[in-house]
Amino acid sequence: MTDGMLVESGALALVAGSGDLPRLIAEDRRRQGLPLLVVRFEGVHAPWADGMDVLDLPFEKPGRLFKAMKARGCDRVCFAGGMTRPRLDPLRFDLKALGLAVKALALLKKGDDAMLRGFASIFESEGYRMVAAQDLLEGMLAPEGVFGAVQPSDQDREDAARAAAIVAAMGAVDVGQAAVVCDGICLGVEAIAGTDALLEEVARLPEGLRHGDAGGVLLKGPKPGQDWRMDLPAIGPETVRRAALAGLAGICVEAGAVLVLGREETVRAADEAGLFLWGRPSAAEAPLDPDAAAPAPPPTEAPSA
Amino acid sequence: MTDGMLVESGALALVAGSGDLPRLIAEDRRRQGLPLLVVRFEGVHAPWADGMDVLDLPFEKPGRLFKAMKARGCDRVCFAGGMTRPRLDPLRFDLKALGLAVKALALLKKGDDAMLRGFASIFESEGYRMVAAQDLLEGMLAPEGVFGAVQPSDQDREDAARAAAIVAAMGAVDVGQAAVVCDGICLGVEAIAGTDALLEEVARLPEGLRHGDAGGVLLKGPKPGQDWRMDLPAIGPETVRRAALAGLAGICVEAGAVLVLGREETVRAADEAGLFLWGRPSAAEAPLDPDAAAPAPPPTEAPSA
Repeated sequence: MTDGMLVESGALALVAGSGDLPRLIAEDRRRQGLPLLVVRFEGVHAPWADGMDVLDLPFEKPGRLFKAMKARGCDRVCFAGGMTRPRLDPLRFDLKALGLAVKALALLKKGDDAMLRGFASIFESEGYRMVAAQDLLEGMLAPEGVFGAVQPSDQDREDAARAAAIVAAMGAVDVGQAAVVCDGICLGVEAIAGTDALLEEVARLPEGLRHGDAGGVLLKGPKPGQDWRMDLPAIGPETVRRAALAGLAGICVEAGAVLVLGREETVRAADEAGLFLWGRPSAAEAPLDPDAAAPAPPPTEAPSA
Repeated sequence: MTDGMLVESGALALVAGSGDLPRLIAEDRRRQGLPLLVVRFEGVHAPWADGMDVLDLPFEKPGRLFKAMKARGCDRVCFAGGMTRPRLDPLRFDLKALGLAVKALALLKKGDDAMLRGFASIFESEGYRMVAAQDLLEGMLAPEGVFGAVQPSDQDREDAARAAAIVAAMGAVDVGQAAVVCDGICLGVEAIAGTDALLEEVARLPEGLRHGDAGGVLLKGPKPGQDWRMDLPAIGPETVRRAALAGLAGICVEAGAVLVLGREETVRAADEAGLFLWGRPSAAEAPLDPDAAAPAPPPTEAPSA
């Protein structure tokens, strides 16, 4: 397990976004008795953290955050879950925020990856190490091959290949980590609203636009060259449920490069809905090491043996 | 005007899709007394053609089409308006369709541009010349510069540049001709459902995802290297209306490379709604000739002087 980390490390600050990922990390650490500070920025819905050591604060008060991290003996920080770009009120800025303002305001206008990299660099310049979710929880990354009961058809595999090319093209301009392709036709591409919204759009498409028996494939994969410590794409039982509502044949993820949140539950949901789950070998634009569970970029937290 | 064409040409077959473009072409030709056959495939809504010389037929019967074109003395064909990929019933195929079936079925699985190029080549191999809508109607292409009363802000211009980069990236994988960017963030990208659907999605975005005072910009432009004889992107009064409903600041089109359907009405709608209309100089990935009204690829119909 992750016991190795106990030996070497101080407390972890977990900057919680939406979705299941931050809850899974927090629960795992509590189970192991590892020190944790949950950071809940204004507007983030994370009721699971009630009763934990949690810091609630507005984005305009980073000074409080760094002070609390220091008080708890944090040496590392993990961003987990979906974050919405905050609407900042400069009148509420604390001194720390004023110092960071020019950089932070510029970052908010960038694509997701550029923005997150920038915020990571702010933490790093304060002396904190960025830790990836997949280095805190074992077995989170999608395996290679079909990992449910249903097999993709040849058409599904072709559709997945086309969707992967589309996601790569979008990633190059820092937009989206998902696309839906059916029978060669791109039904939709993920933008700011995320995968759930994409699947809702596909579910709303008029009858005539989709045909053939293929149903269609949701593909998720990271942007080429994105920072793997933050914002790796993820799927879970809810993704399966929404893909089924959109009439898709299955979900394809880049093996070793996408988080599966609640593997057992996800597979069960897919099997019941008759959807395939397939970890497609990455086209290797990301530096994958086939012998390692966690892929490079170099691990941010090396488990001691 | 377009009188020059009278001298040299036989009848035109107009394969009508949805939207205003085919109607505008047909009305212009009727006004000029030029011979025209309107081709209305099953499922296309084009009631304006009632009372004209119109051929209604299913996609499975291309034999009828070529026979009618021959009987009317057609030598040219123009595809105009949005086409939905047909769901074919092979049991209804006529002899001509059987001869074309392998090619046609493969084309239906391709991106829009690849598909349309393929269908054009079928007409060409039958001896017909493909004519672009913008070569039939004068003054259809977007001018360079602001062509309404409202000026884009600096932020709008930045957003338009980012959207143009996104559309170019999507075009390289043959997806979409439009994107919406607000304050640096990509709010949505056009896929199979088209621009109206994209603007509806943007209108539906939750409050928190968009901020700043920018509003956002819809950019439309052709795919890099696409066949300009078919499926050039278009805007019209309805685009303006939907962009206003989505809260956008304005619409940017690639100058000389996007059709404006009903210029006067479009400008009036934009002025009234307080939206800008801006023909942005193309990044010149398409071969634009600044001295010519119609851009290269080489004109399919050279007006005689």
